[in-house]
Amino acid sequence: MNSFGHIFRITTFGESHGKAIGVTIDGCPAGVEVDETFIQSELDRRKPGQSKITTQRKEADHVEILSGVFEGVTTGTPIMMLIWNKDQKSKDYGHIKDQFRPSHADYTYQEKYGVRDYRGGGRSSARETAARVAAGALAKLFLKSKGIECTAYVTQAGPVKLEKHYSELDFGNIESNIVRCPDAEVAEAMITYIDGIRKDRDTVGGVVDCVIKGVPVGLGEPVFDRLHAELGKAMLSINAVKGFEIGSGFDGVSMRGSEHNDPFYKDEDGNIKTTSNYSGGVQGGISNGQDIYFRTAFKPVATIMKDQDSVDKFGNEVTVSGKGRHDPCVVPRAVPIVEAMSAIVIADFWLRAKSNKA
Amino acid sequence: MNSFGHIFRITTFGESHGKAIGVTIDGCPAGVEVDETFIQSELDRRKPGQSKITTQRKEADHVEILSGVFEGVTTGTPIMMLIWNKDQKSKDYGHIKDQFRPSHADYTYQEKYGVRDYRGGGRSSARETAARVAAGALAKLFLKSKGIECTAYVTQAGPVKLEKHYSELDFGNIESNIVRCPDAEVAEAMITYIDGIRKDRDTVGGVVDCVIKGVPVGLGEPVFDRLHAELGKAMLSINAVKGFEIGSGFDGVSMRGSEHNDPFYKDEDGNIKTTSNYSGGVQGGISNGQDIYFRTAFKPVATIMKDQDSVDKFGNEVTVSGKGRHDPCVVPRAVPIVEAMSAIVIADFWLRAKSNKA
Amino acid sequence: MNSFGHIFRITTFGESHGKAIGVTIDGCPAGVEVDETFIQSELDRRKPGQSKITTQRKEADHVEILSGVFEGVTTGTPIMMLIWNKDQKSKDYGHIKDQFRPSHADYTYQEKYGVRDYRGGGRSSARETAARVAAGALAKLFLKSKGIECTAYVTQAGPVKLEKHYSELDFGNIESNIVRCPDAEVAEAMITYIDGIRKDRDTVGGVVDCVIKGVPVGLGEPVFDRLHAELGKAMLSINAVKGFEIGSGFDGVSMRGSEHNDPFYKDEDGNIKTTSNYSGGVQGGISNGQDIYFRTAFKPVATIMKDQDSVDKFGNEVTVSGKGRHDPCVVPRAVPIVEAMSAIVIADFWLRAKSNKA
Amino acid sequence: MNSFGHIFRITTFGESHGKAIGVTIDGCPAGVEVDETFIQSELDRRKPGQSKITTQRKEADHVEILSGVFEGVTTGTPIMMLIWNKDQKSKDYGHIKDQFRPSHADYTYQEKYGVRDYRGGGRSSARETAARVAAGALAKLFLKSKGIECTAYVTQAGPVKLEKHYSELDFGNIESNIVRCPDAEVAEAMITYIDGIRKDRDTVGGVVDCVIKGVPVGLGEPVFDRLHAELGKAMLSINAVKGFEIGSGFDGVSMRGSEHNDPFYKDEDGNIKTTSNYSGGVQGGISNGQDIYFRTAFKPVATIMKDQDSVDKFGNEVTVSGKGRHDPCVVPRAVPIVEAMSAIVIADFWLRAKSNKA
Repeated sequence: MNSFGHIFRITTFGESHGKAIGVTIDGCPAGVEVDETFIQSELDRRKPGQSKITTQRKEADHVEILSGVFEGVTTGTPIMMLIWNKDQKSKDYGHIKDQFRPSHADYTYQEKYGVRDYRGGGRSSARETAARVAAGALAKLFLKSKGIECTAYVTQAGPVKLEKHYSELDFGNIESNIVRCPDAEVAEAMITYIDGIRKDRDTVGGVVDCVIKGVPVGLGEPVFDRLHAELGKAMLSINAVKGFEIGSGFDGVSMRGSEHNDPFYKDEDGNIKTTSNYSGGVQGGISNGQDIYFRTAFKPVATIMKDQDSVDKFGNEVTVSGKGRHDPCVVPRAVPIVEAMSAIVIADFWLRAKSNKA
Repeated sequence: MNSFGHIFRITTFGESHGKAIGVTIDGCPAGVEVDETFIQSELDRRKPGQSKITTQRKEADHVEILSGVFEGVTTGTPIMMLIWNKDQKSKDYGHIKDQFRPSHADYTYQEKYGVRDYRGGGRSSARETAARVAAGALAKLFLKSKGIECTAYVTQAGPVKLEKHYSELDFGNIESNIVRCPDAEVAEAMITYIDGIRKDRDTVGGVVDCVIKGVPVGLGEPVFDRLHAELGKAMLSINAVKGFEIGSGFDGVSMRGSEHNDPFYKDEDGNIKTTSNYSGGVQGGISNGQDIYFRTAFKPVATIMKDQDSVDKFGNEVTVSGKGRHDPCVVPRAVPIVEAMSAIVIADFWLRAKSNKA
Repeated sequence: MNSFGHIFRITTFGESHGKAIGVTIDGCPAGVEVDETFIQSELDRRKPGQSKITTQRKEADHVEILSGVFEGVTTGTPIMMLIWNKDQKSKDYGHIKDQFRPSHADYTYQEKYGVRDYRGGGRSSARETAARVAAGALAKLFLKSKGIECTAYVTQAGPVKLEKHYSELDFGNIESNIVRCPDAEVAEAMITYIDGIRKDRDTVGGVVDCVIKGVPVGLGEPVFDRLHAELGKAMLSINAVKGFEIGSGFDGVSMRGSEHNDPFYKDEDGNIKTTSNYSGGVQGGISNGQDIYFRTAFKPVATIMKDQDSVDKFGNEVTVSGKGRHDPCVVPRAVPIVEAMSAIVIADFWLRAKSNKA
Repeated sequence: MNSFGHIFRITTFGESHGKAIGVTIDGCPAGVEVDETFIQSELDRRKPGQSKITTQRKEADHVEILSGVFEGVTTGTPIMMLIWNKDQKSKDYGHIKDQFRPSHADYTYQEKYGVRDYRGGGRSSARETAARVAAGALAKLFLKSKGIECTAYVTQAGPVKLEKHYSELDFGNIESNIVRCPDAEVAEAMITYIDGIRKDRDTVGGVVDCVIKGVPVGLGEPVFDRLHAELGKAMLSINAVKGFEIGSGFDGVSMRGSEHNDPFYKDEDGNIKTTSNYSGGVQGGISNGQDIYFRTAFKPVATIMKDQDSVDKFGNEVTVSGKGRHDPCVVPRAVPIVEAMSAIVIADFWLRAKSNKA
């Protein structure tokens, strides 16, 4: 299924080197003011060629809105956003069209469908996430009007980790460096590390953290569509993601219940809050009004600039050679994708929650 | 939404202390032989009161099939499985009906719906997972006929970890001890640890690993319904789960692409395989024919036998007192739940894959 | 799929002669007051054995609510309603188990699934509609609190027609006769006609009209989920229904646009209304605030008390013999089913419309 | 929801006078040969300006495939088809932007969303059906490879009716006249009638019949997704449709069961067939292998070339003036739309039926 969401529902299409990619957003409420400059700026955060630590491929990724917006606001009808692919025609793929690149989707798509668009990974390319960023930008505009904000940033690149709690960070610094880590010192170490990896024609993984502020109590649905279950699915559906944890996550395993439980208290304004937030803002699958906090693990990019052993679709042993340009570490460009998908999840649950009470 | 799955679709209902809980399974193919003894035995693996390290509450959890099975086989129509709750009537809940227990769903349900069944956690109770185990048992029976098997086991309880790779383990040992860890020595350490926690009237978290063998190439759908995204959602929808990782997971982050990529080769029977499996059996969101391998993190159970500070629904400060019986560590009983949900995911994708090719 | 609805979503299960039938209602808002007496009374309107013109089979159809209701109100969690089948065990089906009764679903189920529960039609029996009536009763209770009411009644039984416009009828008379036609004189003619058919061991079709009052402007979704498209699907999913029309329906075909268009005007209270209602209360697939009006055609019941030629599953020519009890005309008992399904459709759209505007 | 279908799932977007309209088809199996000339020819059958009895507006409706097709075949990934709108910019809508045209969707959209694209009816325009025809053409190509064919034709235009049974007609004649009625004589009468209506600046309704041949036994799902219930929804979701009937439909109401039941027999090749087909090829909601036969009623087009009384959005009384070009009768252009939607329904059920048996 190339759709996601129950009320705020997106459907993406397009292959890496086909004519275009895009997204249709169904179920966005009418009356959302559409700031096209903002939407384009979100795509610019994801596009290749931004810095020395991302792929040097240049793509403009210009987004065009074809429907659903009239006189600057959404009309309640589907919003179609289109991004043309440039220069998708000419290249010669003869050498790779039958090869299965290690840890890519070449083999699985070929077997599943009996046919595949081998140009640049086709549908399995991370290029598809540009469409998600466009849709997510609209979700962000909607959420902003409700006082909700999704902020992601890099906390690990290879072995280089940011150890601080998010409350100690200044999110205003995220965009101030090319790796999108809000701590300048750690960012510098990450950049140095990634640049070394790049020179080594290799790749490395990373972690993107995300904090969602302003979420009201009551989003998320029992029992399968728990808020963090949908967030988890959304993150795990992003290319290269291999892990997801919310709140205390894997580290919470060795804690005791008496430490891990988040005591409720009433603040001076009469609001019910918790003194700690190991729950990550979600209890029983439903938001509790505290910050939602989760982490997403990205594996090293499969495209490396080295020769690798593999087989082709006829079962012959082949050498897959690495050439051209690549992303040594995907997390700097993944930041807007994580934000986009989380905004889509929250927007959907915000709308679903409208029918909780008679 | 209390439903899960696209073709093989389950819908659960029921509150912890209501009249009954149960599940309707829609989309199960006709002709599956229904071994009711097996289904009951799966419920017995989940039921409370099994050993000294689980809650001492006794529930028989007898499952009854009310529809969809005729002369021992499924008919293609919905299969309804019912589990009556015992002794749900008498108890006095006066002392807790307005209290919000820390890290439970009392507060979030109350705010979301304006009303809640406070008896034993109502719908948010892990009792709901008994219905999933019943449905999962049916999915297992279906998958078994296709040569697919889902096996889960405990690899961590609090700080006690099983460090071995799954290929070094004998899955035949899983049911030989009460903690469901296939390594006897580590199991013993886990049991000792959990029993200490229990005596301390506290709780602790744990990790359940799962290996799925026999999955053909081609299960999973682009781009949102990736196989591991649905598995992740399924796991994160289980009570107390805070993390999910597939294959290399969070550890893969610091690996290089040249290490992490799984090289393809052709075995002597002409089958395409990979020499390593950091992908965890899924590439591009689609099964590649290797073992599917994932891990699920459970937080410490929120119900502890200690007094805790909290507030009630009127905003008064209250002490939530711990009494009665509790599970000091949920993972031994979570093993069949993880297996059940993974079987449901795989069964659904198996059926979805039938329409891949014209 | 045995589910219907997008937010207010019902899932039914059960075979005619299995252990039980029932329905799970997901997405009903919390806080709806549940009048169990009313729900039972709706089932009583549908049950067999009510009068000489319905089947003489006696079934109590007692409904039991197993979840989702606490202290008399809905809690936002799934509401499970169960109806046990009585005396489902003993009977001998040897003579019909391999036969394909004409215009029943015996043949199609057998071919589709390779197996079928042949007892009383199994899943294809109209007995399944009892579960819909239970769910519809809850939808009615919800709608009543919003000022919306669905009223169905019989306008044709065989060739006997009620020719009056609904505005000329007193809906208070519907339950005053056994055929559920609000015009006493026509009702009498229908009863006489049906009774003759019954004595002739035959059956006949009929038409049920339905009027929904109090629907606000704005229910229904572009473009596939038009209000009347969902109503049509809901009606056509009822056993024996072969036709559906809204507003002017098939008769509107020969009208001119200048006659058929419904002119808008503003009434003395400032409300926008239409002077005619050929649209049947729906324009562009969305309710316009006028009465919703539609008609549903039921074919003659396939079970007749006469011998019929057919084949069995081995391809042998057989005589299907008619014995036992039957409904000579289904429409009197179909009235509460039509109301139930329309209430479910409207409840679902009412909830969906809550997210129209930002 | 702007999506339709469960496995073969289409999502349309676009407004009448926006930049473009289009459709994304998800779930089409890989390996379908895509004959773009055929797809375009289907759009040409729907396009305006074909003859004197359709609107004189000229639109090329050129369809472009942007994804999901590679080297002439489908790849299993979403197929996006785009149709640019021409000349959508310049026109002055000042006079109608606040008016509610009678029996159009102006009022309902305005109230539902609080905002609307008033240009040419926006999303509610029948222009959206061009996207359905494109998707339906692909469904037809898929079905053709399975030996299934959907054929629609006009049987009534205003009061002029074709009374013959479909078995007496030569479908090869359908495209031989501009009204798409396979009987030359009746076609002539229809054309004369419609041309008179056109000269009178008025409109009239009509009926489109459809026959689907080659459908195997077993398509359609219990109990809500009956084959004819989905067909009915599909038809009722087409602009201007007010009625749907399958097989005997409304006429079957006055038949007796003993006449209406379709007796089974075994033909000389050992196939089970029925001697009559009042069921219209569907029994118990599932195809029985006979021809599927249904009828769809279209109301007169709401756009007439006459002045009409109405109100505007401020509640003022206004005169809506008819000018420009219009379709005097929609059914000739509706023929390919009915075929398209029926092909989409059958393709979806064909794929769904693949998981009936274990």
